[in-house]
Amino acid sequence: MKIHDFKSVIDKYKVIFFDAYGVLKNYNGLIPGVEKTFQYLKDTNKEFYILTNDASRKPQQLADSYHQLGIPDIVVTNIISSGMLAMDYLRQKVKKGKVVFLGTEDSAYYIETLGLEAVPISELDLGHLSDIQALAFLDDEGFDWKTDLNKTINLLRRKNIPVIVANTDATYPVSKKEIAIAMGGLSAMIESIVGKQFVGFGKPDSQMFIFAYDHIKNAAIEKKDILMVGDTLHTDILGGNKFGLDTVLVLSGNTQAEDAEVKIQSSGIIPTYICESATVE
Amino acid sequence: MKIHDFKSVIDKYKVIFFDAYGVLKNYNGLIPGVEKTFQYLKDTNKEFYILTNDASRKPQQLADSYHQLGIPDIVVTNIISSGMLAMDYLRQKVKKGKVVFLGTEDSAYYIETLGLEAVPISELDLGHLSDIQALAFLDDEGFDWKTDLNKTINLLRRKNIPVIVANTDATYPVSKKEIAIAMGGLSAMIESIVGKQFVGFGKPDSQMFIFAYDHIKNAAIEKKDILMVGDTLHTDILGGNKFGLDTVLVLSGNTQAEDAEVKIQSSGIIPTYICESATVE
Amino acid sequence: MKIHDFKSVIDKYKVIFFDAYGVLKNYNGLIPGVEKTFQYLKDTNKEFYILTNDASRKPQQLADSYHQLGIPDIVVTNIISSGMLAMDYLRQKVKKGKVVFLGTEDSAYYIETLGLEAVPISELDLGHLSDIQALAFLDDEGFDWKTDLNKTINLLRRKNIPVIVANTDATYPVSKKEIAIAMGGLSAMIESIVGKQFVGFGKPDSQMFIFAYDHIKNAAIEKKDILMVGDTLHTDILGGNKFGLDTVLVLSGNTQAEDAEVKIQSSGIIPTYICESATVE
Amino acid sequence: MKIHDFKSVIDKYKVIFFDAYGVLKNYNGLIPGVEKTFQYLKDTNKEFYILTNDASRKPQQLADSYHQLGIPDIVVTNIISSGMLAMDYLRQKVKKGKVVFLGTEDSAYYIETLGLEAVPISELDLGHLSDIQALAFLDDEGFDWKTDLNKTINLLRRKNIPVIVANTDATYPVSKKEIAIAMGGLSAMIESIVGKQFVGFGKPDSQMFIFAYDHIKNAAIEKKDILMVGDTLHTDILGGNKFGLDTVLVLSGNTQAEDAEVKIQSSGIIPTYICESATVE
Repeated sequence: MKIHDFKSVIDKYKVIFFDAYGVLKNYNGLIPGVEKTFQYLKDTNKEFYILTNDASRKPQQLADSYHQLGIPDIVVTNIISSGMLAMDYLRQKVKKGKVVFLGTEDSAYYIETLGLEAVPISELDLGHLSDIQALAFLDDEGFDWKTDLNKTINLLRRKNIPVIVANTDATYPVSKKEIAIAMGGLSAMIESIVGKQFVGFGKPDSQMFIFAYDHIKNAAIEKKDILMVGDTLHTDILGGNKFGLDTVLVLSGNTQAEDAEVKIQSSGIIPTYICESATVE
Repeated sequence: MKIHDFKSVIDKYKVIFFDAYGVLKNYNGLIPGVEKTFQYLKDTNKEFYILTNDASRKPQQLADSYHQLGIPDIVVTNIISSGMLAMDYLRQKVKKGKVVFLGTEDSAYYIETLGLEAVPISELDLGHLSDIQALAFLDDEGFDWKTDLNKTINLLRRKNIPVIVANTDATYPVSKKEIAIAMGGLSAMIESIVGKQFVGFGKPDSQMFIFAYDHIKNAAIEKKDILMVGDTLHTDILGGNKFGLDTVLVLSGNTQAEDAEVKIQSSGIIPTYICESATVE
Repeated sequence: MKIHDFKSVIDKYKVIFFDAYGVLKNYNGLIPGVEKTFQYLKDTNKEFYILTNDASRKPQQLADSYHQLGIPDIVVTNIISSGMLAMDYLRQKVKKGKVVFLGTEDSAYYIETLGLEAVPISELDLGHLSDIQALAFLDDEGFDWKTDLNKTINLLRRKNIPVIVANTDATYPVSKKEIAIAMGGLSAMIESIVGKQFVGFGKPDSQMFIFAYDHIKNAAIEKKDILMVGDTLHTDILGGNKFGLDTVLVLSGNTQAEDAEVKIQSSGIIPTYICESATVE
Repeated sequence: MKIHDFKSVIDKYKVIFFDAYGVLKNYNGLIPGVEKTFQYLKDTNKEFYILTNDASRKPQQLADSYHQLGIPDIVVTNIISSGMLAMDYLRQKVKKGKVVFLGTEDSAYYIETLGLEAVPISELDLGHLSDIQALAFLDDEGFDWKTDLNKTINLLRRKNIPVIVANTDATYPVSKKEIAIAMGGLSAMIESIVGKQFVGFGKPDSQMFIFAYDHIKNAAIEKKDILMVGDTLHTDILGGNKFGLDTVLVLSGNTQAEDAEVKIQSSGIIPTYICESATVE
């Protein structure tokens, strides 16, 4: 397994797409040295975007979290969250009325910004569904799992509405050794129980990459000029590969150096490069 | 679709296996007339067993519930619960130590009866797992879904122990129009997330039928003498068919008269007979 | 269920995306009246694209088939085939060497056009795999299923290469009543057996829609100006909805008038409009 | 990972269940030393059964194959094949008429023995289905995959009949390095395409173990007296564990010494013992 120097790799590309967790930050905060990467991107005038499966917070809050970690150069226009994709979908498909959601008050931003009324699942009256236009799974926090997941099932049995999953990840890390169930895990259970097809957003789906691609300011950029950097084979690398980008697997997160070769072999998902981390020295 | 007379059907068999919910009782209590069926079974000297996907209560409690509904002839020896199968498995595979469980105090009966120590998931210390021998999903009540399902995942990531699912049903009915997520639904989500294979118990698995078959007192009984009566194609009828029994689909529960033909056609699960209900007038 | 007039619907949009089979043609040839639709599109100066899950023939052959059916206005630049997406992927990810394929000689076009060497699976020597760079599932014709699917499995066990599925449909219609297994069906079996993740192309994946979107000549077009017309909920309508387009379900193919409401209800995939067919009288 | 001595292990049990391929024989013939195991079983008066996922040959042919390999003590009454289970199912559920099958002439034995008419799929006339009572997947040999699998799908779309899969294994080994797709693989593809539920037979299903258990001559035998010996975690060991038997994983077949610990860890299927092979020196 050949390990490449990250700086030499990014020198070949004009635009860099980064995954967030496991690449730029982890449970401890910033991955040491990553701040220099963003300085280098600025110095070399490369565009970058952060593609994150997240609908728990507004894009501005996501950007702010990098400022607090010491990277002022990541601003809201650099952020591509799966929540933004879900919002885009709602904008096209739901023109007015109420959207029921599972998630925190913060996550309701993705509905309210559109001028739609966001109804927390806990406040929904199953007897009055006439103006309910859609259901959105936004965040695993902000509701009672037992009461409200059962309520969700009965809502979907009574009314045929589109269901949006704003983050298809099954789990997320909460500490070095522990993970928690994310919206993608809960929504897959509900989808299987009600037997309907939900509309999910997040890597590895191409939708995420095209959304970022459409945001690139430099009109001359082609896919071969873009590099996707991620720590997870099944989301970042598969999605990048499928969209036709070159990809770097970094070993600072989900995929450890000792497992990388076996995981690549067994999954059949092959990154273009492997680097220790997304740091330039 | 030919509807058969239930009495004429059972007259051809010596032993009757019944599903419980949707066949003998529903959210309203006893299905009207079922008490006469049990009188008729007594008069005609037929053996019967109730095969129920349930690990929430002790077999004695399950039997008692029928007494309260007015059928004194259903006693504990007539009850075959999936919890009893799970208990049988634990008896063979776990000789001593602690078994962590998700469920109510009542459900812990299936562990404690064996002389094993039942540890509620909420009381488990993830830092001290050395004497934990197995994990059992018993009932959807009795724990906090968010906290304790996340804890369950982290337990299974840290320690490789057998996992028993004492009821593989994904949902259960709570009223005429509403259902709730059952242990089978929750455990399937966890199984998919941790990527391990759990050992599940309940119809349609053959294990349930062989357990009932082994309890039959009359040694001369063969499979052709036994009739399985159920309201659900995917559990009762599939399981009965596969075990080699003749089967009756009754229309008093999960499968309504107006959908029965379409459901049989689309699932490919074909009952031997269809009857309005398990009543003998 | 409200049935809309197709002409009134398309009048609201500037660009129309059509599915091919079940919308424009079927086992009998052209769906009667569809030729007038294309005359109307020409008269009203609307752009159109045909999005087809097909990698069995070159785009030019696909266009020619419409000429023979009497629609000269469909030319190669109107065709978006899943084979073209697969080719685009290979162009990005495989720069040189050999690509093994399952399919006809015609389907090998998608590999050879790139300057890569296309090796039919039947001619592959499992003992000499060093220059094999990828595997492509192109067409269900052109190879011996038993011999060559088994050979495919053993190739993938020996060498870790990217696998491309150039049409993810599980089946295709061959007559009014009969269907046949397509590449998506066969490749899903192989994927499950070898436990690797293949890269598939075709509706409902967003990739297909973005590829068409990128081809639109009129730079001022936004998603709200585009209508997707299809006969299949799980590919055409789900894909169009997810990409943020308005959608028409036509009842001339896979979804019959008598089942449409039940299928929409049970799948949860909701078209913007329902029309009898893609004809303008 | 502790390796146990096979002889010491079997000394604790009265009845031994063996898997065939990878335990008793492989692509080279008998696994060296296994003949002494059967001498030892005879000397110590232990009962044994061979539980094999196989419906390609009659039980007598399966027994004969061991005689040819030099173990005369394995006779037809020691053989429990998944084909026998499928036959038992057909006996209960199909009293007369025709059963269509995919497989060799040899495999048709499992239908013809019952006095039913076995119709090879290639000879079926899709226009005359009135006396077709069931479909059986018996063996991957004996039919043309492309023609006859497509015909199978169209049969199942036209007529709602029970479908029996007489061997649920997805693959089988053909040489040291190569495997081939088995009936379980093909039937799972068809099941997914037609959306119906087939009735499958074979380990790890309990049905296989209860069938063997019912054959034990010594009436005093309990589950704790029986040992299951296998080389595959997902069939032999999972099935044995679930039925409540103690299990031995041998390292002479599917599971190599170097992977055993990782496979046990990652699957969560835990054998009671691990032994090098099923040999007693």
